[in-house]
Order: sequence, then C-alpha cells, then structure tokens
Amino acid sequence: MTSHPHEPRTLRVALLGHGAVGSEVARLLTRDADELAQRIGARLELVGVAVGSDRPDRQTAFDPALLTTDAAALVRRGDLDVVIELIGGIEPARSLVLAALEHGASVVTGNKALLAEDGSTLFAAAEDAERDLSYEAAVAGAIPIIRPLRESLTGDHVRRVLGIVNGTTNFILDAMTTTGQGFDEALAEAQRLGFAEADPTADVEGFDAAAKAAILASLAFHTRVTIEDVHREGITTVTADEIASADDMGCVVKLLAICDQSMDGGAVSARVHPVMIPKDHPLASVRGAYNAVFVESESAGQLMFYGPGAGGAPTASAVLGDVVSVARNRLLEVTAPPERTHARRRLLGIGDARTRYHIALDVDDKAGVLASVALAFADNEVSISAVRQEGHGDDAQLVVITHTATDAALSRTVQQLSDLPMVREVSSVMRVEGEGL
Amino acid sequence: MTSHPHEPRTLRVALLGHGAVGSEVARLLTRDADELAQRIGARLELVGVAVGSDRPDRQTAFDPALLTTDAAALVRRGDLDVVIELIGGIEPARSLVLAALEHGASVVTGNKALLAEDGSTLFAAAEDAERDLSYEAAVAGAIPIIRPLRESLTGDHVRRVLGIVNGTTNFILDAMTTTGQGFDEALAEAQRLGFAEADPTADVEGFDAAAKAAILASLAFHTRVTIEDVHREGITTVTADEIASADDMGCVVKLLAICDQSMDGGAVSARVHPVMIPKDHPLASVRGAYNAVFVESESAGQLMFYGPGAGGAPTASAVLGDVVSVARNRLLEVTAPPERTHARRRLLGIGDARTRYHIALDVDDKAGVLASVALAFADNEVSISAVRQEGHGDDAQLVVITHTATDAALSRTVQQLSDLPMVREVSSVMRVEGEGL
Repeated sequence: MTSHPHEPRTLRVALLGHGAVGSEVARLLTRDADELAQRIGARLELVGVAVGSDRPDRQTAFDPALLTTDAAALVRRGDLDVVIELIGGIEPARSLVLAALEHGASVVTGNKALLAEDGSTLFAAAEDAERDLSYEAAVAGAIPIIRPLRESLTGDHVRRVLGIVNGTTNFILDAMTTTGQGFDEALAEAQRLGFAEADPTADVEGFDAAAKAAILASLAFHTRVTIEDVHREGITTVTADEIASADDMGCVVKLLAICDQSMDGGAVSARVHPVMIPKDHPLASVRGAYNAVFVESESAGQLMFYGPGAGGAPTASAVLGDVVSVARNRLLEVTAPPERTHARRRLLGIGDARTRYHIALDVDDKAGVLASVALAFADNEVSISAVRQEGHGDDAQLVVITHTATDAALSRTVQQLSDLPMVREVSSVMRVEGEGL
Repeated sequence: MTSHPHEPRTLRVALLGHGAVGSEVARLLTRDADELAQRIGARLELVGVAVGSDRPDRQTAFDPALLTTDAAALVRRGDLDVVIELIGGIEPARSLVLAALEHGASVVTGNKALLAEDGSTLFAAAEDAERDLSYEAAVAGAIPIIRPLRESLTGDHVRRVLGIVNGTTNFILDAMTTTGQGFDEALAEAQRLGFAEADPTADVEGFDAAAKAAILASLAFHTRVTIEDVHREGITTVTADEIASADDMGCVVKLLAICDQSMDGGAVSARVHPVMIPKDHPLASVRGAYNAVFVESESAGQLMFYGPGAGGAPTASAVLGDVVSVARNRLLEVTAPPERTHARRRLLGIGDARTRYHIALDVDDKAGVLASVALAFADNEVSISAVRQEGHGDDAQLVVITHTATDAALSRTVQQLSDLPMVREVSSVMRVEGEGL
C-alpha cells in the first residue's frame, strides 16, 4: 500500500438513483464531506448520479452537470471506487451492479429484491472482482442487523431469526389491534397517511418481507436461501375477529419473517406469515411502522434490534455506514469477509415447519362435537393444548390451541375437520409463537 | 500479502483469565476450531492460558500444560497474533494489554473499567503498534453495540444514547416494581438468586454503569470521556414510594446511562442515575437482568439494541465475534479504523445537564403552601408542568413535575424549598425522561 501523507487520496463515487433515499445520500455526502473524509481517510468525490429520466430542473445537492441518464456508461467509467445502487428491482439494477464490480468498484446497495432473487450471482461476482458488496440498507432500513449477523455473531451459532421487517403491514396490524378496524379500513387509513402505497401488493402480500427473510436466513445460517424458497402468506385475510381472539389469549398478531432450522441443524426454513405472539414478547411492543429483528443464538441468547424500517433519512444512514466501510476497505485494498454459504443446508418446505396453531371452528352446538373435533386432531397426531367454546346455537364456535406440530399434520387435520358434518366452517387458522399460552 | 493455499496459516492466541467468560471462550475456541478456521481463513491455536493461581486440578477444555501463572511472560512471547484479556480491573490488565500490543498482538478485551479509566493510553498504543484493540464484550455483554456505533452509524450523527447497561440494578428495580419490595429486600433476593454479588457496590452504586457510559459517550461523540467525567448516582436511595409514584404517573424507574450533547453539539455529557421513564418507552419493557441501549441519531432516528447484558456464554459470544474480526485483520495485515476522538468536545458537568424532574415534598396541609412552593420554582426559572397533592394533615405531600431545566437550577430550587417553613422535607427528587407526562 503506497501512502502519500501530504496528498490524500480521493475516492470516486457514483450514485444510481435519486429518489427519497438517493437524494438524501447525495445531500449527506455533500454536507458532511469533511467529516466523512476524516472518518475514511480519503475524500469522497461524487462523479455521477444516474437518474431514470432527464429532468434538468431537478433539485440537487450537487452540481446538476453530474446528472446522467446513462447509468450503464457511468458504471463502466473504470475509475470508480464505490457505486451506490438505489434503483431497486431486478433489471437494470443487476446488470449495473455486475458491471460496476467488473470495472473495479465496490458496491453498496439497498436492493432487497435483487439480493433475494440472485444474491449468489452478485456475491460471486464481488468475490471474483475482489470488491465489497454491502447491503445494510436492504433489511430493516436503518437498523444495523446485517453487520451484527455478518460480524458480531460470527463466533456464535444463530438458531432462529424472527423479524418484523415490513413497516406497512406492522402499521396496518397495529391499527387493526388498536381500533378494531378490519383490514380494508386499516389499509385505506395507512394509504391516506402515506404508510402504504397506492398499490400495496408488495407489502400486504408479504413479498417485501419474503425478500428480507431470504437475506436474513442466508446470513444467519451461512447457506443460500432465495425468495423462491420462502413460504409466503400476507395479511389480507387477517380478520378483526382473529385480532380480537389473539387479544383474548394475551397475544397480538404480527406479520413475521421466520428463519429457523431443524433440530439437528441440517436443514433450514424461511417463511413469512401472520403469527399470534404473546404481548410480553419483545416483538409484541414494536408499534406502527417500526421494524425489529429478534435473534436467538446459542451463546448470546436472545437479542433484539429495533428501529425505523424505512424512510429516506434512516435508509440513507445505513447506506452511508456501508459507504464509509467499503471506502476504507478500498483505501486499504482489502475486502470484508465474503458471504459464507459453505453450509449448503437442505431447505425445509412449509410442510415441515413446526409451530403451534390457533384454529377457530364454527360448529353445531350439540353434544359430541368436541369429541369428534378432538378425534380429528388425534388422528393426525396433533396434540391439543387448550380448547374454548364461545357462543351458542348458530354462533357456536370452538377455539383450539395446539402444541407444536408440523404444518403438514395441521393441514391434514384442517382438511379432516372441514369434512366433519358438525363443523360448518374452519373460520381461522393462525400460527402461534412463544411459550406458555 | 503472501499466500500459501495448501499450507493455511495458523494464528496464535493467548487467553488471560479463565473465569466464567474465559473458560467458555476456551471451550468454544476448542469445540468450534474447524468452523472458526473456515470463518477466519486460518486456524486459531491456543498457545497459553494465564490464570491467577496454580491449580493443576482445574477443569480445562484444552491441554492443561497450556496453563501458566506468568501472564507477563505469555504476552511477551513475541509470536502471538491475538491476546484475549478477561482478567478485568486496572492492573495488571493494563500492563498486560500494553505489552501484548507492543509485542505485536491484537487485543480483544471485555475490560470496561480499564477502558473507561485509561482508554486513551490503550488506543494510542494500539495505533502505534498497528494492531486492533476490540472490546464488544465491555458494554452490554452479548449485545452488538460497539460495532454498530463504530461502524454502522459512522455515516450518521449520534445525538443521544440511553442505556440500561447493568443487569443487577435492572433486576433489583424490576423486582421492586413488580413486588413492591424496598431496595434492601430486593437486593437480598437478587443476591440469593445470583443476580447480585456479595459486595454489590460496583453495581448498585453505579460504578459499573458509569464505566460503560464513558465508553459509549466516547464512541458516540468521537471524543474521549473517562469514568471521572461521568456523574454517578446509584439506586440505593430509590424507595418503594418513588417506584409507586412513578407507577401512578405511568412510568417505571430505571437506572440509565445517559450520554448526550448540548444543543449546538459543542459539548457532551455522560451521567448515570435513576430515571422515571414512561411505560411506553422502548426501554421501559426491558425486564430482569436484560440490558438495552437506545440510540438517537440524526438520520437513523431511534434505534434500540436489546439482549443479555452479562453471563459467561453471552459475553463469550461477543468476545469470539471480536476474535474472528481481529484474526481476519491480522491475516490481511490491516487494522480496523482507529478510535476517533478528533472532536475533543467540552464536557458538561451535571449542573448543565438538562432534564425534567419529579419532586415530592412533605408539606404542612394549609393554605398558601402551593403558592410558596410555586414561587420557589419560579424564582429559579424552573417551569412547572404538573402539581398533585396527596394525603392530608400530617401526611400531606406535594408532587411536582417540572418542564426541562438544568440540574443547577433544580438544585437551587430544592435548596430554597428545604428552607421553606411549611416544607417539612423534600422527600424525593428524581429525573424524568420522555415527553408527554
């Protein structure tokens, strides 16, 4: 490493994307240039900002001459040290990231969709190019969770990760819990307040959370999990009745990303679905659009990381933290440890996932119902923890809480229950996390 | 950097201390040797374990021949890559760490007392020696907080850190809250259950938390804060009445380490004292011996890091995370960014600290008392947020909640109140954090 104490090196940075996060990153790179130089040991020079369309009147924190619509040419300049990718989506983001790495730049990205779909290609490209690929901003916004999993817990064994990783759905479920609103009403309110998009599909159907689950599971278990491997259920079918029933049990309903492994550690699974969790669980008190990731590891025990999961400024904080790290590494001509997927564990399907269940049945209010219902559970070796009858006559309902069972056994049980003549409808099946209910 | 793909390098590790944490670290270094080698890219070889006294019958996870009582000779071998210091206290730990660095080893330590007393000497020595000095285990056990502050938030501006960083005092205050016990009773129970030591001074008088406050403030504000700079009050004077009064206000009492800065950022302060915080504050639900650190930063907003604050296995997890990092750095012949204390900010004394207060006064139950009391506050420009009278006759008590004021103004107010003939006693003064009470 050569060193010129009187001629500090400049590192060249290109920014792809100038939306809420990109413009905040540009603003901070400009405003805090001196301080960042001190932290890195080199000045960062913003040499280009790629935008989707030519808008000469765009407000920028930098010389507007740096704006370009030719991102492909920008990443191929050959003199870049760091490329910050904040375009999102699969293409052209993937081609641009690969080209940036090939042409010698380290990459900082917040692109969860791309990492979850094709992380292995990107990480392989980074390793081949001997450059960093950093992505703290891709999961849970400003919350430092990628670095702790990659570095702090690297001497430990993560057993399980539970995350509230989508602020929109947490806001909606929280509103349903607080106000008794149904899903549609709460969604409309979230849209009105700017917490949900006009097309909320990616959030409410769990696609966004599933991408993050894939990234978290890959990191936690040192194996490659893609979004295709993640079982996904959204919150559109969660009813006010289920929220109320959870409340009766001392629980709240949360959309969780769950990454866990089989008893022997040989196989892993990642899934996203609504879950009832006890109110005294640390994740239960995560309100509104906040995110939190709960990690259970062998030595460290139970850890939780909490903070804003989205937004321009919080996400920009995560991006800048990565920029400082990869810039320092460029200066030292080293890279962070590559992604380790040596474990190559088997992926469990949802049928093998083991959890507890809350099942509500509309039943005929007559003798023998409970016996028949109990038999359906016993036939499938699903053990019952508690049963409660609610209402009478046409409103009679049975609520059953099970002990831990596989999803496959539970599905068979539900099928059998549906076929019983005295069961009018299986009105709710929801998974339950946490002990002691 | 030379590379021998078929002859992987071995890194030599010495362990100082073989107590609860040290023995767990030794066990994991041995048990997980293959996995750690894969993560680091080199095998770790434990070449010596320094213990305080010769006990040949000691149970060890390693060849007992590695045990030595001559720590000074061990750290001077000259062939060590990593020294893990888990002795604690100032001496001989300081001399051993300095000698280890001088002789070419990177150091991983969990020694909060030493870092808080003399961090600048140690960090300067590490920088001179071009070696790492890592200390994730020194604050909040297994919770990754040092690395997020040093690295993840390095592109952001931390405004404030509030931490529950001592499990013993949190356990005692939690027990007082749950059971209505007084301090002495709750302490005895904590001792019986192993959550407090026979001599609990370091915990209950806030020394342990003050050391951690100094470390957190130094990191958060990029300036050097020592334990001498930390205003410290313990929990021995917290009464069951104060806990009950907090509960009435929708608050709980916590011992907090508080690091903040003046409005203009030019000065910083660190202090440890009991605080009433609203029950809906994320720190309020941190129960038992758990720790949590709450960080407010300009861009990221409010973050919280939660987990076990002590114990052999959790602390060993933090130590091993550091060992993997510094070992990788030794292999690459680089070091982590040095501690940055370039900010050299002025330190505020407790008199300049600004917070809100809960003050309870035993008063004569007669007309004019409130007017006189209110005047004492007004005279010192301390604005009153709420007043409540409790009891009558000999039991009459006024509870006053103030708006934000400096500690100096509050002290003058309390003095003036004590001098009032109708005030029999100022029975409680406690600081209040959080808005909206």
